[in-house]
Amino acid sequence: MTEKKPKNAISPRREEDYPEWYQQVVKVADLAENSPVRGAMVIKPWGFAIWENIQQGLDKEIKRLGHVNAYFPLFIPLSFLEKEAAHVEGFAKECAVVTHHRLEEKDGKLVPSGELEEPLIIRPTSETIIGDCYSRWVESYRDLPLLINQWANVVRWEMRPRIFLRTTEFLWQEGHTVHANKEEALSETLTMLEMYRKFTEETLAIPVIVGEKSPGERFPGADSTFTLEAMMQDRKALQAGTSHYLGQNFAKASNIQFTTKEGNLEYGFTTSWGVTTRLIGGVVMTHSDDDGLRLPPRIAPNHVVIIPVVPNEEVEEEVFAYADKLAASLRSLDYHGRPLAVNVDKRDLRGGEKNWEWIKKGVPVRIEVGPRDIENQKAMVARRDHGPKDKQGISVDQIPEQIVRWLDEIQSAYYNQAKSYHDAHCREDIETFDELKAFFTPKNKNKPEIHGGFVKAKWCGDESTEEMLKELQVTIRCLPLEQSGTEGRCVLTGKPATLDAIFAKAY
Amino acid sequence: MTEKKPKNAISPRREEDYPEWYQQVVKVADLAENSPVRGAMVIKPWGFAIWENIQQGLDKEIKRLGHVNAYFPLFIPLSFLEKEAAHVEGFAKECAVVTHHRLEEKDGKLVPSGELEEPLIIRPTSETIIGDCYSRWVESYRDLPLLINQWANVVRWEMRPRIFLRTTEFLWQEGHTVHANKEEALSETLTMLEMYRKFTEETLAIPVIVGEKSPGERFPGADSTFTLEAMMQDRKALQAGTSHYLGQNFAKASNIQFTTKEGNLEYGFTTSWGVTTRLIGGVVMTHSDDDGLRLPPRIAPNHVVIIPVVPNEEVEEEVFAYADKLAASLRSLDYHGRPLAVNVDKRDLRGGEKNWEWIKKGVPVRIEVGPRDIENQKAMVARRDHGPKDKQGISVDQIPEQIVRWLDEIQSAYYNQAKSYHDAHCREDIETFDELKAFFTPKNKNKPEIHGGFVKAKWCGDESTEEMLKELQVTIRCLPLEQSGTEGRCVLTGKPATLDAIFAKAY
Repeated sequence: MTEKKPKNAISPRREEDYPEWYQQVVKVADLAENSPVRGAMVIKPWGFAIWENIQQGLDKEIKRLGHVNAYFPLFIPLSFLEKEAAHVEGFAKECAVVTHHRLEEKDGKLVPSGELEEPLIIRPTSETIIGDCYSRWVESYRDLPLLINQWANVVRWEMRPRIFLRTTEFLWQEGHTVHANKEEALSETLTMLEMYRKFTEETLAIPVIVGEKSPGERFPGADSTFTLEAMMQDRKALQAGTSHYLGQNFAKASNIQFTTKEGNLEYGFTTSWGVTTRLIGGVVMTHSDDDGLRLPPRIAPNHVVIIPVVPNEEVEEEVFAYADKLAASLRSLDYHGRPLAVNVDKRDLRGGEKNWEWIKKGVPVRIEVGPRDIENQKAMVARRDHGPKDKQGISVDQIPEQIVRWLDEIQSAYYNQAKSYHDAHCREDIETFDELKAFFTPKNKNKPEIHGGFVKAKWCGDESTEEMLKELQVTIRCLPLEQSGTEGRCVLTGKPATLDAIFAKAY
Repeated sequence: MTEKKPKNAISPRREEDYPEWYQQVVKVADLAENSPVRGAMVIKPWGFAIWENIQQGLDKEIKRLGHVNAYFPLFIPLSFLEKEAAHVEGFAKECAVVTHHRLEEKDGKLVPSGELEEPLIIRPTSETIIGDCYSRWVESYRDLPLLINQWANVVRWEMRPRIFLRTTEFLWQEGHTVHANKEEALSETLTMLEMYRKFTEETLAIPVIVGEKSPGERFPGADSTFTLEAMMQDRKALQAGTSHYLGQNFAKASNIQFTTKEGNLEYGFTTSWGVTTRLIGGVVMTHSDDDGLRLPPRIAPNHVVIIPVVPNEEVEEEVFAYADKLAASLRSLDYHGRPLAVNVDKRDLRGGEKNWEWIKKGVPVRIEVGPRDIENQKAMVARRDHGPKDKQGISVDQIPEQIVRWLDEIQSAYYNQAKSYHDAHCREDIETFDELKAFFTPKNKNKPEIHGGFVKAKWCGDESTEEMLKELQVTIRCLPLEQSGTEGRCVLTGKPATLDAIFAKAY
């Protein structure tokens, strides 16, 4: 008895080999590829257009909340990194070091020359170089709050790179703010966390848990780190963004001092917060299926692709004109502040080939138009949240009236599916370390199946207990902002505990 | 007899010390500053907002012309640079070289460790790394044309850095396209040149001469380089952008081959084109005066600043409300595709101080509102293209009706002033090398005054004659696309010549 498996565009399927499935989706959706430089990716046009939509959406929110953009140098003098001790520990280890500023020919080869007096580090994050500026820009309480954001590339030398998720070079935004007191700085940290949550859930359709990092998972140099944790379809956590309250640590390291209203000199209270091109990986891993990428309409480079079906050359002109007319009527519409993006795919390829290409690339709505449709003033509409063969003949006049609703339905469907998956694999009934261990242990060690999930359990808060999780390859993802306040026993030690914590394997 | 000099916000004035005047404008307008890393600037919020407007305007045009954006790695393997011989000569010399990927503590200091097998170069331009991708992406004539643009930071180690004009790290866009034949590639090169010309003249209000570079000034590896040359207020030329026809040189170096319709294998024909943050320097040097920056409205971060005049605390609320109401009515207007950007400056500073700050920062229109204005339903309007004391009382209802016209008038005024200056210092009557030499020699060698200009003269086209210009510190800026076709004598050699060339000192 052989079971007939459905034929899918992606091989392997998720359940067969999740990591390889991910690589294949990135490949067939034409999002990005590895470059000749180990760990540094090339973001291809389709992937970059997604990033542009993410960037524009976030940039608008960042500015709405009173921040302005600026640009700081790529290079950080080595000595700057040494200023903040914890920061050195966390960041100074794996980074790109510039030691020369010239090349010279020697025996027909180019070799580095012009050695620098002080090596330069390619920014792994910009706290130290921005801190140097802020020490000059901040003089009085009148200069505060200082609310600046930067869009930039950063480099962290990755030993186990993975496209979008962990790359040597990546793109991000990093906000860096200075405030006159702790309350304002903490409030900023949480405001930006909430902005990220709203964006991630509403625009990327990715449900997240927001919370504070445990001491072992804090940003090097921060007093507290807040995070957004999303569950991927292999039930691992992806940290989707972070917001740090840095206290006066960096202000002291960089000498950011201001005169208070009362005329005293005080160190500023700083924050930093950022999200990266990793979000694209999060979108891929949250929404894609075994036919490829599925893009939430709010960030899709094209909302709609129109595929003209041309059985013979004689009708081509008429079919193209019909498609163009429909495209024009759709392009005049607005979808969440962006004109509806419509592509008419006139390439000389078979309709089936085009159809599968756009399925794999995740375009929310495909519309086929052919000679018979013109006769009936109809079009065949297919939605990416439905099956690949599921098409519906719809009156062409109806399409502009319905399209925004369909897109909103697709956006909601993706969120709801992700939320159901998240909820289904978020366990709250695990109470002992043995249970935790069993939950996070795959049945087959040679080829681990998708297993585990998020565990919400009590934790005593003792930093040293985080060590116990290492053998499970599990970490505390966060202490959710929403705490139950109930009493129970620490899942690690059995001691009385009130803190709720989220435990999971993570990217 | 002492002459009374007008008091200005900038010291020195242009005529006193142009280079220092430039630095002062950049400083008082709060555009940018030098960083601790030699030659790498910090672009401050006001300067970066100008760049964002330039970027958004150009990006729209680049996309309208069929290009898509992508992102390629910051790092280029050293061996890639060696592939194109002329390119090596031009670019491999002064660049940042990454040799290590780790730092390690040694005697309490951080030192580079983890030496790379092959050093990496920070991109000085991306032809070679993009060429490597294109060699994989281009297979058939169906893949052409390939039209991709990148917004990125690049690094060229500058020995004599100058803020915005020549910095070690700068921001730019670089377009890289592949075509099936020479005609299409040349047409692309000229299309993008024309796009830059239109943008530079219409949006930046900077008049330019477009033309082809002489062999001595070509991009390393290009078959032909086209350029936009603008005259600054010290009469030196600023190369505002370039567009290169690269022939098959890079395609051969990177092995970009495609199968033709006929089934033959051929090398692609490539182009590249770019403009940089140098344009901000061009804006500063073209439009600013001895009171500071003057911003063309089309790229001004704020079109209007409203300054509430508050003689005593009792009226503050009323004056602020009046200002906010006016601001709201202006913000609902559109200025060339962007909502009118209006700032109400409520800071606790004297009105005069605020006024001078916004004059120095170049805001096109300032509007003062005080208690008496409320009584008369008026406001005092000052335009940056008029004198700093020149204010006009205008009915507040009239302002929303007039503002777009005023801004357009300011935009035109700046262009016309720059064009008049350009024309006044563009000489066409210089016929011999001696005259050329006299024209480009300052009267005072110790403290050179503003001198020279553009000389349009005949050139024989012999590459070796460009050497003669070195002693004058002059270069051939371009051979204008618009050629007179007349015959004459080469200004360098006296030989018969038909080519028109532009000679100038340059940044």
